[in-house]
Amino acid sequence: MKINPQKSNPPRRTLKARRLKTITVALGKRSYPIYIGAGVRNSAGKILKRLRLPKQTVIVTDTIVARLYLDDVRRSLVEAGFSVLAIVIPQGESQKNLRRADAIYTELLRNRIGRKVTIIALGGGVVGDLAGFIAATYQRGVNFVQIPTTLLAQVDSSVGGKVGINHPLGKNMIGAFYQPLCVIADTETLQTLSERERVCGLGEVIKYGIILDAKFFDHVQKDLADIIAMQPAAIARVAARCCELKAYVVSRDEKEENLRAILNFGHTVGHALEQAGHFRSLKHGEAVLLGMIAETFLAHRLKMIAEADLRRIEDIITAVSLPRSFGFVFSVRKLIDTMRSDKKSLGGKIHFVLPQKIGKITLPMPVNEETVADALRYLNQFVKGL
Amino acid sequence: MKINPQKSNPPRRTLKARRLKTITVALGKRSYPIYIGAGVRNSAGKILKRLRLPKQTVIVTDTIVARLYLDDVRRSLVEAGFSVLAIVIPQGESQKNLRRADAIYTELLRNRIGRKVTIIALGGGVVGDLAGFIAATYQRGVNFVQIPTTLLAQVDSSVGGKVGINHPLGKNMIGAFYQPLCVIADTETLQTLSERERVCGLGEVIKYGIILDAKFFDHVQKDLADIIAMQPAAIARVAARCCELKAYVVSRDEKEENLRAILNFGHTVGHALEQAGHFRSLKHGEAVLLGMIAETFLAHRLKMIAEADLRRIEDIITAVSLPRSFGFVFSVRKLIDTMRSDKKSLGGKIHFVLPQKIGKITLPMPVNEETVADALRYLNQFVKGL
Repeated sequence: MKINPQKSNPPRRTLKARRLKTITVALGKRSYPIYIGAGVRNSAGKILKRLRLPKQTVIVTDTIVARLYLDDVRRSLVEAGFSVLAIVIPQGESQKNLRRADAIYTELLRNRIGRKVTIIALGGGVVGDLAGFIAATYQRGVNFVQIPTTLLAQVDSSVGGKVGINHPLGKNMIGAFYQPLCVIADTETLQTLSERERVCGLGEVIKYGIILDAKFFDHVQKDLADIIAMQPAAIARVAARCCELKAYVVSRDEKEENLRAILNFGHTVGHALEQAGHFRSLKHGEAVLLGMIAETFLAHRLKMIAEADLRRIEDIITAVSLPRSFGFVFSVRKLIDTMRSDKKSLGGKIHFVLPQKIGKITLPMPVNEETVADALRYLNQFVKGL
Repeated sequence: MKINPQKSNPPRRTLKARRLKTITVALGKRSYPIYIGAGVRNSAGKILKRLRLPKQTVIVTDTIVARLYLDDVRRSLVEAGFSVLAIVIPQGESQKNLRRADAIYTELLRNRIGRKVTIIALGGGVVGDLAGFIAATYQRGVNFVQIPTTLLAQVDSSVGGKVGINHPLGKNMIGAFYQPLCVIADTETLQTLSERERVCGLGEVIKYGIILDAKFFDHVQKDLADIIAMQPAAIARVAARCCELKAYVVSRDEKEENLRAILNFGHTVGHALEQAGHFRSLKHGEAVLLGMIAETFLAHRLKMIAEADLRRIEDIITAVSLPRSFGFVFSVRKLIDTMRSDKKSLGGKIHFVLPQKIGKITLPMPVNEETVADALRYLNQFVKGL
């Protein structure tokens, strides 16, 4: 799990990105590299050419990201000899649905896009999940490349092959495990993130520390000001380490049969909160920050984690920033109902991965609903007290 | 590629099916058995239990098949301790769309069906493709079992993992490669097929002879009366051999990177015909029968196959029965346009696998559109002359 910054690395002269790091997600035949560096979006064409991908590419992106980075990526691809069709969708989680997917299938077919195509997701988690689902299902699966432009997507959603869309009755209920051929993570794109989007990514960063790496947690705590400011060197280090940790987990358990479930820390409560707000009130990362507070309290209530660790976790999350309200009427009963139908629930029992100390977490375990209700009430009070 | 009728075979006492054959589709970790026999539907519960599948099952079937076989399969599952949710859809290719898929996702979610479920397709190719697509995408993929009840599904579509739905702009344009955990092919269910459905399956049977096995072609020609009558012993032999041939091809090329393309013989023209009739005028198997005539003529026109073989192929197809009209206005130009946007077209060129003699076929090769037009005109005349 060491960083090999030079191994199988493109020479600096051809790939102009500075401080480029390459991390490999080891999945046998389906292994793939993650390129992390400032400006690496401008090398997308060269990277795809080196992978010998077919001439035709389709960039799926949203209106905001298109304005900022579509021209750069398109130019890089065209200069390397690729054809580019750009499909630009509105921004927001509400786009991650079957109707939008259908519209994209239609656009691909109208443009007579065949099987020999690479679908490139340029954007945040929504674009990555949606474009990945299209890549997984268009003509039974075509090439897929991720160019994540948000911190959340760079440290989490672009790595590991989870793709999918939402259903009115549940988040990510329709989807697949479908690995990209490479991930191109340009840290320059993080400079243009809104504060709210930075916060979302930092939630996942903190999560990695809590579930897997106490030393990394300490480092994030110490460097927090630089990291929150997206200071280039600081954020590149953090993004690379998060990718390594995620790659480590995914390599050992691609399809979430055991270990991978630890990545869901904060997500059981988090998904329920997102759904309660109809995916509009809270962003995914905000919901996860809130979810981690509730789930750490749950672990503490079950005497699994010390109060000191609970406080450290609460403090760092509060320092990153938390929404001061949920944006919807907080109903413990409804949230529990949602969790019960979550795809992580097993035999109708709500399961959680619970931190035992910073850097160590359990596999999924059932928790009785009264205790979950306590944790939700605690979270509600916590947010009110901010 | 030998039949091993006893190997890893359930003992006759527990599985009551008579003359049970087991064929294995060899795909490494994802290998799976095909059980072929009269009455084997009544052993579905025992088979699933032996595979240690989770308690919850969902049977997807259509109204016609439900009336005939749903009770048998449900009883078998319940007796073996499974819970059963049945989702019954209208019959017909027009159901294989995104709207129907969405309705099924909704029904699964409303019933709080989690990840630990087995989706069972009970029916013909439409039900298998649609239920398989649901299994491949519900909660990122759940267990899948096929119980094909038509000859076409038993000899072709239930084996090999191609699942998917149609798009208004093209057949099977949305889908995945997703292997079942087992296939349970009950030859008793073939007795209730309409003549039209028998014909459809026989098209694929003849196809296997042409592309892979001259001896099998001879056998089918000789036994044709019994086979057309679905005489139990005759049809069981034929179904088993077809499954073996398909398993052989799929094991060597699961994702259609080379060899598997030979299974598309008759399908390039066939799909275009189906689409021209909006998937209503012609059934898939009828379209393939017609497509094989056009594509064999094409091979003959390119001096790749002898006239004698062309006649033998035409004769057996005509003996099986061909529709006497297309059911839509036959436009050579429109059919060619459709083939050009077929997912089997490469770089805008229409490709065909072409028989060189009975039992031997090429890999996909481009054919110029004028020659394709000739073959379509020939087919049109051929049908008029019936």
